[in-house]
Amino acid sequence: MIKKFGSGKVNLAIWAKNSFVNDDLNQMYGSDAMECISSSDQFHFMFSQARALDLIELEQLLQSVGWSRRPIRRVKKALDNSLLKVGLWQHDPKFPRLVGFARCTGDGVLQATVWDVAIHPVYQGLGLGKELMHYVIKSLKKLGIERVVLFADPGVVAFYKSQGWQLEPKGSRCAFWYSN
Amino acid sequence: MIKKFGSGKVNLAIWAKNSFVNDDLNQMYGSDAMECISSSDQFHFMFSQARALDLIELEQLLQSVGWSRRPIRRVKKALDNSLLKVGLWQHDPKFPRLVGFARCTGDGVLQATVWDVAIHPVYQGLGLGKELMHYVIKSLKKLGIERVVLFADPGVVAFYKSQGWQLEPKGSRCAFWYSN
Repeated sequence: MIKKFGSGKVNLAIWAKNSFVNDDLNQMYGSDAMECISSSDQFHFMFSQARALDLIELEQLLQSVGWSRRPIRRVKKALDNSLLKVGLWQHDPKFPRLVGFARCTGDGVLQATVWDVAIHPVYQGLGLGKELMHYVIKSLKKLGIERVVLFADPGVVAFYKSQGWQLEPKGSRCAFWYSN
Repeated sequence: MIKKFGSGKVNLAIWAKNSFVNDDLNQMYGSDAMECISSSDQFHFMFSQARALDLIELEQLLQSVGWSRRPIRRVKKALDNSLLKVGLWQHDPKFPRLVGFARCTGDGVLQATVWDVAIHPVYQGLGLGKELMHYVIKSLKKLGIERVVLFADPGVVAFYKSQGWQLEPKGSRCAFWYSN
């Protein structure tokens, strides 16, 4: 069974009509997959932690929102060592397309850090970013994580604030060190 | 052999005189232990990633600098899942005392986040915090980590800035979500 997740409206007619569809979805996205509600009447979207990521497709997605290019081999290792990896897929029975992504590192108990959040520019404005972050938080809550942190670029600070994230609480500041 | 690490002055006379001391140190702190240079003439300090931490002692240390109390079982799991754990010990042949600590989570390749940095108030002002952060960065560099981030409370922002950490580079902000 495919669980639903989200707060928006969606036309579920084609999903409900045929149980084969759900079986297919489970096979494509894993048994813990969830539908991502959006304001689109045209597309259906799925969250999946299980569906294998094509690393080239992932890097293209991340670059489409402005992240810099990274060596694929290092990305693979980083993904392997991540606590949580969430792919957001525009569903297609034959060629699902990776349109969103987020991953977390952390100790699995007390702290988590969110990295590489992206919604492909073509799919922005459908409420997917909000649902993606809800899904991430919900997944981390299941682990009992107490505190989650992320680094928001200037353009998305207002987005996170509106979702209830606290900016530099109690006057704390984030400090970065770079290897080069 | 015990490696030395740090930039301050130290009286190494008692360490150099007797090779037994070094063997003992290796046994106590692990073969990758390093001396932490400080401005103290009275004490010797050691970095160790191998020496087992007494979780009660660790929590007391973290509380001494104002971190809130956490369930020991969860702390243990968080430590087990951390990328790096560094204890800073005031050396004593019989009763070494944990006077500093830092740990990191991360993907082991691209990103790391530093948590739970503490120097016991009694031992502050000896340059230990600076050496501890040098040691952490050096250890992460060995892994090839590209970016390290931490959250600085207002009282230590100037400290990190003076150590070359960049605060919210390019206008980015850190955003927190709490489970309660």
